[in-house]
Amino acid sequence: MAKQKKAPKPKAQTPKGFRDYFGAEVTERAAMLASIAEVYYRYGFDALETSAVETVEALGKFLPDVDRPNEGVFAWQEEDSDWVALRYDMTAPLARVYAQYRNDLPTPYRRYAMGPVWRNEKPGPGRYRQFYQCDADTVGTASMAADAEICAMLSDTLEAVGIPRGDYVIRVNNRKVLNGVMEVAGLSGDDKEAERGIVLRAIDKLDRLGPDGVRALLGEGRKDESGDFTKGAGLSEAQIDAIMRFVDAPLRIKELLETQINEVEKHRAGSASTDTESSLLPSGIMDGLTSLKSVVPRIIEDLERSIAASGELIPTRSTMVATFRVLHEVVGASEVGAKGIDELYQIADLLEAQGYGPDRIVIDPSVVRGLGYYTGPVYEAELTFDVQNEKGQTVQFGSVAGGGRYDDLVKRFTGQEVPATGVSIGVDRLLAALRSKGRTTGEAEGPVVVTVMDRDRMAEYQKMVAELRSAGIRAEVYLGNPKNFGNQMKYADRRGSLVAVIQGSDEADRDVVQLKDLVAGAEAAKDATLEEWKARPSQIEVARGDLVAEVAKMLEAARGA
Amino acid sequence: MAKQKKAPKPKAQTPKGFRDYFGAEVTERAAMLASIAEVYYRYGFDALETSAVETVEALGKFLPDVDRPNEGVFAWQEEDSDWVALRYDMTAPLARVYAQYRNDLPTPYRRYAMGPVWRNEKPGPGRYRQFYQCDADTVGTASMAADAEICAMLSDTLEAVGIPRGDYVIRVNNRKVLNGVMEVAGLSGDDKEAERGIVLRAIDKLDRLGPDGVRALLGEGRKDESGDFTKGAGLSEAQIDAIMRFVDAPLRIKELLETQINEVEKHRAGSASTDTESSLLPSGIMDGLTSLKSVVPRIIEDLERSIAASGELIPTRSTMVATFRVLHEVVGASEVGAKGIDELYQIADLLEAQGYGPDRIVIDPSVVRGLGYYTGPVYEAELTFDVQNEKGQTVQFGSVAGGGRYDDLVKRFTGQEVPATGVSIGVDRLLAALRSKGRTTGEAEGPVVVTVMDRDRMAEYQKMVAELRSAGIRAEVYLGNPKNFGNQMKYADRRGSLVAVIQGSDEADRDVVQLKDLVAGAEAAKDATLEEWKARPSQIEVARGDLVAEVAKMLEAARGA
Repeated sequence: MAKQKKAPKPKAQTPKGFRDYFGAEVTERAAMLASIAEVYYRYGFDALETSAVETVEALGKFLPDVDRPNEGVFAWQEEDSDWVALRYDMTAPLARVYAQYRNDLPTPYRRYAMGPVWRNEKPGPGRYRQFYQCDADTVGTASMAADAEICAMLSDTLEAVGIPRGDYVIRVNNRKVLNGVMEVAGLSGDDKEAERGIVLRAIDKLDRLGPDGVRALLGEGRKDESGDFTKGAGLSEAQIDAIMRFVDAPLRIKELLETQINEVEKHRAGSASTDTESSLLPSGIMDGLTSLKSVVPRIIEDLERSIAASGELIPTRSTMVATFRVLHEVVGASEVGAKGIDELYQIADLLEAQGYGPDRIVIDPSVVRGLGYYTGPVYEAELTFDVQNEKGQTVQFGSVAGGGRYDDLVKRFTGQEVPATGVSIGVDRLLAALRSKGRTTGEAEGPVVVTVMDRDRMAEYQKMVAELRSAGIRAEVYLGNPKNFGNQMKYADRRGSLVAVIQGSDEADRDVVQLKDLVAGAEAAKDATLEEWKARPSQIEVARGDLVAEVAKMLEAARGA
Repeated sequence: MAKQKKAPKPKAQTPKGFRDYFGAEVTERAAMLASIAEVYYRYGFDALETSAVETVEALGKFLPDVDRPNEGVFAWQEEDSDWVALRYDMTAPLARVYAQYRNDLPTPYRRYAMGPVWRNEKPGPGRYRQFYQCDADTVGTASMAADAEICAMLSDTLEAVGIPRGDYVIRVNNRKVLNGVMEVAGLSGDDKEAERGIVLRAIDKLDRLGPDGVRALLGEGRKDESGDFTKGAGLSEAQIDAIMRFVDAPLRIKELLETQINEVEKHRAGSASTDTESSLLPSGIMDGLTSLKSVVPRIIEDLERSIAASGELIPTRSTMVATFRVLHEVVGASEVGAKGIDELYQIADLLEAQGYGPDRIVIDPSVVRGLGYYTGPVYEAELTFDVQNEKGQTVQFGSVAGGGRYDDLVKRFTGQEVPATGVSIGVDRLLAALRSKGRTTGEAEGPVVVTVMDRDRMAEYQKMVAELRSAGIRAEVYLGNPKNFGNQMKYADRRGSLVAVIQGSDEADRDVVQLKDLVAGAEAAKDATLEEWKARPSQIEVARGDLVAEVAKMLEAARGA
């Protein structure tokens, strides 16, 4: 550090919107990312680490047409040279890399990337300007097998990091289905972009406003409770109906499932026609759905189990079949809509073959988030277990990952259209989920602290920790001023240590050590004198030669406590 | 990606001085860092991850007294606010964190940090503007036990990542010994800083110029082979002699060791006086060296073994004792010099107690690098095995880590002096060392590629990879256009795959698959037709049900090849 003569003292502060991560916050994230990387690797994805810095030109979104092009990114000008910026995501650098190395990279190129990204945005509670992203993308193939593979991989990944099956669901939709709906509603064509934007935003508000609110926004507009009026898309009744068939699709699917349940109940009671299969899957819908046909017996079985268990609908193959029926109703004669459904068929089919049933991955037309950005299939991983939100309400944990197909990734560099599909995991969200499931604690176990009773015998204390470490036990000698024994105990407490080791000259003469179980008496020990402290029952004396074995035993007991 | 209408195509290029890392370059570094973190953690060090961005004020070295304070760092001004910059090392952020959180952190605070740092310097071959650092520091204790601990940890770390004992040595010196030498040479005092600088630079050139060259630079100056003259420090003969005793210390130590060997040989021959012990350790040198005295019998043993083995001197306890004798000669009556030697004693003593002999860690006065920066002990890890340099010469691999004690880390923030000591591992250097030792390959093994012979049977191919992955085997389906079988083989080749799986309709009918060993025929296979390719002996047909077992067998064989 250069000397700062006479300069005022600098403030020791993290820059606004940034934060520091300590101990377990770092190691638990690292462990989670390592688990994820292992799954990605097994799926044939290769690691890629690009530099944090990119030229603004390559990042794309931001052009140096103003003096300081840092809208949303951290950017600066190199000496007499290019503007550069910190990457704001992992996708823009992937596009640059694929264009730059396309002759050397395999095609298709499966890559994963994990690391920090930076956003020059107004920070808020829990919103930081640097955060981790963890992406996997397949570049250079239009095959739906690539999308199906990423959905399967996402499922494996969630289970690998510790989210049990049943506590998550991956929902798949297709942008083209929505395009089909737009077509049916007479809203396709370049000149209708503004209307489509309003429609998309209206659909996205379904959760908050309900179907009637959405309907109002599609028509003349909507007055909210405060009296404020939001202008609508001004669609005709027929147009609105077409859109609302899409919005209502989840409800329709539910209805259909109830019908199916009735069919199954009749089937069980022996009163159904022998044609349960065709009532579940009317012939029209089966075009191109060959492999799903074979699952009908299992659909019936699933439904029976579902009815027997709780009467509630669980995500099953049956939902998938019902979904396809409703989607066919929704896109009508639209060609792009039919293409979208066909792509969803293919994905469902491939996933079915690999054993990923709707208990893990479902086709769900209600996935709208991000539809504006993507060009084909979109997918989203949602955690379905309950947590308390900040208001104390019980809510589902919600989305932790999302992605989809975006086919003009590399075009801006090369002019060539390169199909690609990929997913991004919200690292902090997933980590928070693991904490709320008790999979990680957010706190590291402190080391065994060997206290210093006699400064001249430091070498012997060091020998003790060396032995403990050799046995794989995290351990350290107290390296502060050893005079005040209470300070050594306070230190061990602050470290979250479970066990402390003491050996004064008396113990040394008798070739023994004292082991203190810190879990029992941590609070009380803070102000204890050495004598008081030794009197506690949670302390035992063991032979010096048994140090490692006895500490290991005590740690095991303390961890169980 | 926003549309860039009519804008010229951006260049797909990494910014100047930055680079991308692919596949094994990423995963091998990650694996190495994980091994290091495990050792650090076991020693009681806690992870810390600070943000990449710091205020320029907190970074310290660089003040916003010019319009653009980016000398050496990447810096920019926030909107109407502070200048911020990317961190250039891990130490400056540690100082900021310790000052900011000092009331909440344990004292002493042991922390490790690993991640990229950025330097705004002219890039060169192998010199990048973003690179990894991996640091461990103990803040808040002046105890030599902290320095000894870091040396021991560094030794454990090198072995943990795969550098075998004997292939490295950790050298320890002390800045105070040099200060003592300066005192003896009449070069202490604030007004002599310039001279000391010249002396330090001269000493640092010993390897290149030899003792006579250094001597010339300490005196009037030196003319090099091209006739250029470098002005010297202008010291008197007595001053030069004092410095040269330090420079010559390694030679003197060697002499002393040879004397000791003679003593031992006489001892063996029965012709020595009974006082071998005191001739090895004359009484004056033993002050404060109590614990080392007990090792004299082992010194003799080591020397005997060394003589018996090869006649060559290996680093042993004897070198350490000889070292202390010579250091006493070198610092004469200097108080600070004696303090430096005392600190080195303590470190040697503590390491000895933990079993870290001079086969791993030696006291070595020839360590000068970085002495200018540090205030007490300094340490350096050197790899001693041979490698070829760029000129094809055989050289020792050299330094991979260094550190030492720096006691005014936090002072600029709080005014309070906080003692600290720490080490930084050169991540790229150490990784290069592992590659040159064959510990890592720099190349990832490609996945098993399941080829696509029949696009309609994609679901079955996906099922195959799902089975392989479930067995922990890295596998993928070819997702490019399957029409040209040769392209599929080229792809597998580019991926570095060892095994390919084929199942056409013929094989499907017979419920078998073909497995191709790609190691054998990789080159030739590139342009083969399917028929030619199937004829190769490195291909076998197995039952579909045996897919996983047979692939595993073939992989094992291919890895051994």
